[in-house]
Amino acid sequence: MDYSQLALQKHKELKGKITIAPRDIVDSKEKLSTYYSPGVGAVSSYVAEHPEETREYTWLNNNVAVISDGSAVLGLGNIGPYGALPVMEGKAMLFKSFADIDAIPIVLDVHTADEIVAAVKAIAPSFGGINLEDIAAPLCFEVEERLKNDLSIPVMHDDQHGTAIVTLAGLINAAKVTNRSLADSKIVLVGAGAAGVAIAKLIHLYAGSTIVAVDSKGIITNNRSDLNPEKQILASFNNTQADGTLADAVKDADIFIGVSQPGLLTTDMVKTMAANPIVFAMANPVPEIMPDEAKAAGVAIIATGRSDFPNQVNNSLAFPGIFRGALDHGVTKITDDHKIAAAEAIAALVTDPSADKIIPGPFDAGVVEAVSNVIR
Amino acid sequence: MDYSQLALQKHKELKGKITIAPRDIVDSKEKLSTYYSPGVGAVSSYVAEHPEETREYTWLNNNVAVISDGSAVLGLGNIGPYGALPVMEGKAMLFKSFADIDAIPIVLDVHTADEIVAAVKAIAPSFGGINLEDIAAPLCFEVEERLKNDLSIPVMHDDQHGTAIVTLAGLINAAKVTNRSLADSKIVLVGAGAAGVAIAKLIHLYAGSTIVAVDSKGIITNNRSDLNPEKQILASFNNTQADGTLADAVKDADIFIGVSQPGLLTTDMVKTMAANPIVFAMANPVPEIMPDEAKAAGVAIIATGRSDFPNQVNNSLAFPGIFRGALDHGVTKITDDHKIAAAEAIAALVTDPSADKIIPGPFDAGVVEAVSNVIR
Repeated sequence: MDYSQLALQKHKELKGKITIAPRDIVDSKEKLSTYYSPGVGAVSSYVAEHPEETREYTWLNNNVAVISDGSAVLGLGNIGPYGALPVMEGKAMLFKSFADIDAIPIVLDVHTADEIVAAVKAIAPSFGGINLEDIAAPLCFEVEERLKNDLSIPVMHDDQHGTAIVTLAGLINAAKVTNRSLADSKIVLVGAGAAGVAIAKLIHLYAGSTIVAVDSKGIITNNRSDLNPEKQILASFNNTQADGTLADAVKDADIFIGVSQPGLLTTDMVKTMAANPIVFAMANPVPEIMPDEAKAAGVAIIATGRSDFPNQVNNSLAFPGIFRGALDHGVTKITDDHKIAAAEAIAALVTDPSADKIIPGPFDAGVVEAVSNVIR
Repeated sequence: MDYSQLALQKHKELKGKITIAPRDIVDSKEKLSTYYSPGVGAVSSYVAEHPEETREYTWLNNNVAVISDGSAVLGLGNIGPYGALPVMEGKAMLFKSFADIDAIPIVLDVHTADEIVAAVKAIAPSFGGINLEDIAAPLCFEVEERLKNDLSIPVMHDDQHGTAIVTLAGLINAAKVTNRSLADSKIVLVGAGAAGVAIAKLIHLYAGSTIVAVDSKGIITNNRSDLNPEKQILASFNNTQADGTLADAVKDADIFIGVSQPGLLTTDMVKTMAANPIVFAMANPVPEIMPDEAKAAGVAIIATGRSDFPNQVNNSLAFPGIFRGALDHGVTKITDDHKIAAAEAIAALVTDPSADKIIPGPFDAGVVEAVSNVIR
C-alpha cells in the first residue's frame, strides 16, 4: 500500500503530531507562585548549586532531543531542516508511544561538523539525551564522536547504531535457524553509509566475521586510494583483499546485508551464494531483492525494512529501550557493550526462531523493557 | 507567604513540569506507516519543496522556544543553564495554560552574543517563534536585535517587551484615574537593565514623555562618559540633563517606575513628588517601596510585581497573547506598533479603572484574546 496520500492528509489534519502537556494546569495564583515566580526561584537556586540534581526537579530525567540537519532524510537525501521536521516529529511520537520518553524535534540550519557540534553542545543542558538522526555520512561519524566525547549525556546516532543493533539481533537468530556460526560466515555488506559502517563494526566486534564491504565502486579493499577513514575500517574487515564487483563479492557468501539501492541483488547473484543463504535486503522502501524472488532463488531467510513482509528490521526495536534504559539508569555513554547486549536481548525475545520470525515485531510486548534492562 | 518549600516539594514530586503528548498514539502498523516511514516521506518531500507550508504539516504553527543562557534568572543573577531550566519549564507551563501554545524550554551553555545568536539561528527552523528570557543586559539588546534581523519568525525578549507592554497598560489607566496626561508627566525610571530600557523606550514612543532615568551611579545624562548605547538612548529622553541622585530625580515627579532594588524609594522621597503621584515599584520579590508605606506617604496609585497586592504588573498578561497572535496571524516581526496596541488592549480590558484596579489580573478572562487580536 502507498501511504503517501494518507500521510499528507493526516499530517495536514493534525497540524503537528506532538504537543506540550503541562503536568499541572496553572489556573490559580497559588500555582503561579509555586511553579513560576516567586516559588521557582528556590528551585533554580538549588539546582544551580547542585546541577547534578537538575534531573530530579525538571524534565531532564525523561527528555531526549531528536536532532537532524536534514542532510540524509529517509531515502530522500539532503532535503534540509524543514523537510526533516515531519520525520523528527514522527520519531518523537514513537519515543512517547513506545517508551514514554519526551522527545523534542530539533532541526538544524547548519551543516558543517563544527557548526552542528557547536549548536548541539550549546543546547545540550536542555536535554537528558541526544538522538542524532538523518545526518549524512561521513559527517555523521565525526559529529557523533565529538559529541560523545564532549557531553556528559548519552548521544546516539540512530541511523548507525539503532540499525546495527537490530540487524545483529536478526543475524543472531538467522544464524541459529540456519545452523551457522556468525564467526565462520562470509558476510557481504553493500552500502558504506552511516548504517553500513555501524553494522559492519558491530558484527565484527561481536563475531570477528570476515566482512566484504562493497560500495558504488566495487569491493572496498586496501588497494583503493579513495577510502575515507570509515571505509578504511571496513577494508580492514576484509580478509581476502580481492578487488571486484558486487557479483564477485557475493560468490560463496553466507550472508548478504544490503543498506544500499533497490534491486541491486539479482537472482543470478543469489544462486552463486553458499547453500541456504541469509539475505537482509534493507534498502527502503524497495529492497535490494524482493522476498519472493529471493526465496525462489534459494534464500533460506530474508529480512527487509518493510512492515508488509516478515522479519522487519525496524530501529524502533532498539532506540526506545536504549534511551529508556540510559535515562532510568543514569547511563551517560552508550558503549559497544550496550549495543551488543541490546542486540542479544532483542534476539532472545524470539523464543523459537524460524525463517519467518527471527526478530520481534515493532509492537511485540516486552521489547522496550528487555532492551532498557541491559542499558546500565 | 514564602513559596520556597512548597515549590521545592512540588517540583521534586512532578519531576518535570511539562511532557510531550503525541496527538495520536502509534499503536498499529498502519499508524507507524502513516506518521513515520514510509508515509512521512511524502510529507517531507512536499514541505522540502514548499518550506513556507511546513507549518501546515507540523507543530511549527503552534510552538515557541523559550530560550535563556541563565545569565539573569529572576532576581538570582547569572546562575547558568541548569539554574534557568526550572524557570523556562514554568514559562512553558504558562504558555500552554494561558494560550495553548507548545513552548519548549531551551537553556544554553554559551554566553557571548555571537555564540547565542549562532545557536539560536541554528535551531530556529524547529520553532514558530522565539521567546528570549532571562538574558543579562546589555547583551540581551544585541542578541535580540540580531535575531530579529536574521530570522523570519517572531523573536521577543520578554524581560524587555513583556514588562514594557504591561507597564504601559497600567500607566495608561493610572494616568486616567489621576487625571494626568502621560505626555505632560515627569517620569522617573530607576533601573537601566533589560526591563528599564524597554519601558522607557515604549513610553517615550507612546507619549513623548520626559523620562529621567537613574542607575546605580545616579541620573543618566549626556554628561556621563560611562554610558553604553542603550543608556545613551535613555539619556536622550531626559530633557533637563541635570545630574544628580535618585532623590534629586524624584522631586516633582508625577510617576516613579522602579525595576531595580528593594527599598530604594523612601517615604521622604515620595513626599517630594508631585501631588497624587503614581508609583510602579516592580523590584521582585521585594518592591522599591511597600504599598502600605507608599500610600501613607501620599501615593495615589501603587503597582508592584507581586500577586499579593492589587495592580500586579505581570508579564503573563502580554506574552501569551503576543505569541498567540503572531502564530495565528503569520506575524514574523513584533513591532513597536504591536507593543503599543497590546498595551492599549490590556488597558481597555479594565472598563472602570480605579486606584486598586488599573490592570487585569493574570487569570481575568479575555486577556489572551484581546492581545492576540491586535497582533496582525
